[in-house]
Order: sequence, then structure tokens, then C-alpha cells
Amino acid sequence: MTKVCASITTSVDGYVTGPDDGPGKGLGEGGERLHYWVFGGPWTYESDAKGEPGAGLDGVAKEWMDAAFARLGACVVGRNMYEAAGHWGDRNPWHVPTFIVTHRPEEQPDGDEFVFVDGLAEAVERARAAAGDKDVSLSGGADVIRQALAAGLVDELSIVVAPVILGRGKLLFEGFDHDIELTPKGVRQSPLATFIDYEVAKP
Amino acid sequence: MTKVCASITTSVDGYVTGPDDGPGKGLGEGGERLHYWVFGGPWTYESDAKGEPGAGLDGVAKEWMDAAFARLGACVVGRNMYEAAGHWGDRNPWHVPTFIVTHRPEEQPDGDEFVFVDGLAEAVERARAAAGDKDVSLSGGADVIRQALAAGLVDELSIVVAPVILGRGKLLFEGFDHDIELTPKGVRQSPLATFIDYEVAKP
Repeated sequence: MTKVCASITTSVDGYVTGPDDGPGKGLGEGGERLHYWVFGGPWTYESDAKGEPGAGLDGVAKEWMDAAFARLGACVVGRNMYEAAGHWGDRNPWHVPTFIVTHRPEEQPDGDEFVFVDGLAEAVERARAAAGDKDVSLSGGADVIRQALAAGLVDELSIVVAPVILGRGKLLFEGFDHDIELTPKGVRQSPLATFIDYEVAKP
Repeated sequence: MTKVCASITTSVDGYVTGPDDGPGKGLGEGGERLHYWVFGGPWTYESDAKGEPGAGLDGVAKEWMDAAFARLGACVVGRNMYEAAGHWGDRNPWHVPTFIVTHRPEEQPDGDEFVFVDGLAEAVERARAAAGDKDVSLSGGADVIRQALAAGLVDELSIVVAPVILGRGKLLFEGFDHDIELTPKGVRQSPLATFIDYEVAKP
């Protein structure tokens, strides 16, 4: 049975980016620390020594990521995140059908790396169909995850907490005023992050 | 060597209370869910069936709490929290020297259950002296923990995350704009809460 699994990294104070995020600095000022776990250690936007995402994962992160990848049937990502990531160099990094939520679906590039869809509910529906008996990953950004939680579309929520208090930036739950019960489903910790998995109660 | 250990419970979206907290409802509207772990299960302000705090702790919560109590030499608590808790019935529940941070130290009640101190830094200093070689617990509220983090007074920070998104209330990090590095020191999870322990980097 296909589940929709949202996951995102935040600081201890709930930020998904530092301030002044934008092209070339998707995680904002000082936000690289949120994703140290992705590269297995410190990196900065100013240096290019960080290697491939996921290549340096430590044991705990790899275990968590491997479990997610084993169930991965399709992805849904917001347009802002797609742009902030530089379209992943126009190559789908997940190798499963990936739907980009956008108000301008006509801007879908040629090829079949990414499918542009107007509207989150439709993107999730198409991703469910494409995932077969595997899961749909909802990988961000924060706005897409908030919308999906508010619409009752999320079955599991994973929050990866980086060990830093940022003090500034964009909050995962900015403006979110829904009350939602969760059930803890697991936790792991490495020096670079704490991975918390929840099941989301349906309204 | 004495450490100052701050600990507080928040929702997944970072709230330490629901909305409209006040006398008789210290955790605010719907905020009881933050402290299900304290009583080992569901309770409400409307019912009085919740028993004694800590009496129904599950295995994970008890393990975490026992570790903290074994090191407990003194407490520092903010006046607001002291009042919200109804002074714990004027009996110190920790049985160690407990300092209440207040702008009105002259209002200290008779007896030696609680010592009123004007100013956080002085309260922490007196608690350190009173703790001997044990630790100082900084148990809230959120404003006291923010002040202590901002002033570099905290050695360890524990956040107990209740499995609920509240959507409204008082945020632990409201208005906090400091950037602080942490080091993960442990994590535990039960059906009622996830306990995350950090060491705090000193400025």
C-alpha cells in the first residue's frame, strides 16, 4: 500500500533555511550546516569540496536514507525547491517518476526527467499512480509540506534535525495553524543530525 | 564539574504551550498533549485523573528522568512558570535548592522551599554554588531558557518533543536570534515523546 512520506531537514529552532536563501545559496546564509549530514561533514557554498550529495553519508544517515530509497516509487517536489537546486543539472537524481508542483506547467522542459503538474493534490495523485506498491516521497520545500499536511495528504512525516540553532531564516511551520496528531515511529542520531519519523493521524 | 542543563518540552512545531495559557491551564488550550509523557498517558485540565507527575512515566521517560535526577544538585526556574505551576503547592518537588528568577525577590514566601533571586545570572551562579559537584537544572519557562542560551550560561540542552503539531501557542524560540552550535549527545523515543540531548557550544 502506497504511503506519502514527507521529509525535510530543520534546525533545532525549526528553520529550513538560513536568511537570504536564493539561487546559488539554496539553504541561505549559514544554512549549509543544515545539510552537513547530506555530505558527511562540513561544507560551504563558497567551497566546492563537498562532493556528491549522499556520497559521504555516515552510518546512521545511510541507514535512514537506504530505508527510504528501498520504498521509493515516485517523488513530488515544489517548483521553488526545483529551481533552488538548479534542476539537479536537469537530471532526475532519484531515478523514479518525479512531479514538480508549479503554477506554470507549460514550462516543463523537454525530455522526461521531470513532469510539471499544476496543483499539489494532482501531483500527489499522479505520483501515487506512478509509484505502484512503493511510496511517494514529498521532499519539500516547506511550503509544499505545509500544504500537504493541511490537506491531509501526508501519511508519514520525517524531520531531520540538524544540531544548530540558526536564529533566522525560513520556518518549516511558518503560518501553519493546523492541529495534527502524530505517532512516533522511530528515531536515529548521528553527530550530524537526529532523524525523527512519525506517522500522521488522518483527520 | 557542575553543568547547567536546560530542558523543556515542545510540540513538533516548536510550541511550549497551546494558546491562552494561564492560571489553571499552564500549558494552554490543547497543550495537555505536550505533557502526556509526564503522566504516562492522556489527561486534561478538566479531569483530575492524571495522578502525580512522574508517577506513570514509561520506561524511556523514566530512564531519561532518572539520569537527570541522579545528577540534580539545584534548580533554576522562572517566576512565570512557578506561578503557572501554582508554586507546586508551596512544596519544592525536587528536594534540592531551587532558585526562582523574579524582579520581585521581596515576595519570597516564608520558609526555605524556594529562594527568590533577581536576575538569571545570579540565580545560576547561586545554583552552581549550591549544587556542589552535581548539575543545575534550568527547567523553564521558555523565556528563562532563551535568556540563558543567549547569555552562554547553558552547557546542555534537552528538548522533549511531544508527537503533536499544535499550530498555535507560545514558541520556545520566539524572537530568539542567536546562532548557536550544538553537539548531539543522545536520543530516546517512546510513544509519548522523543527526548533529544545536546551539548551547547560556548561562544
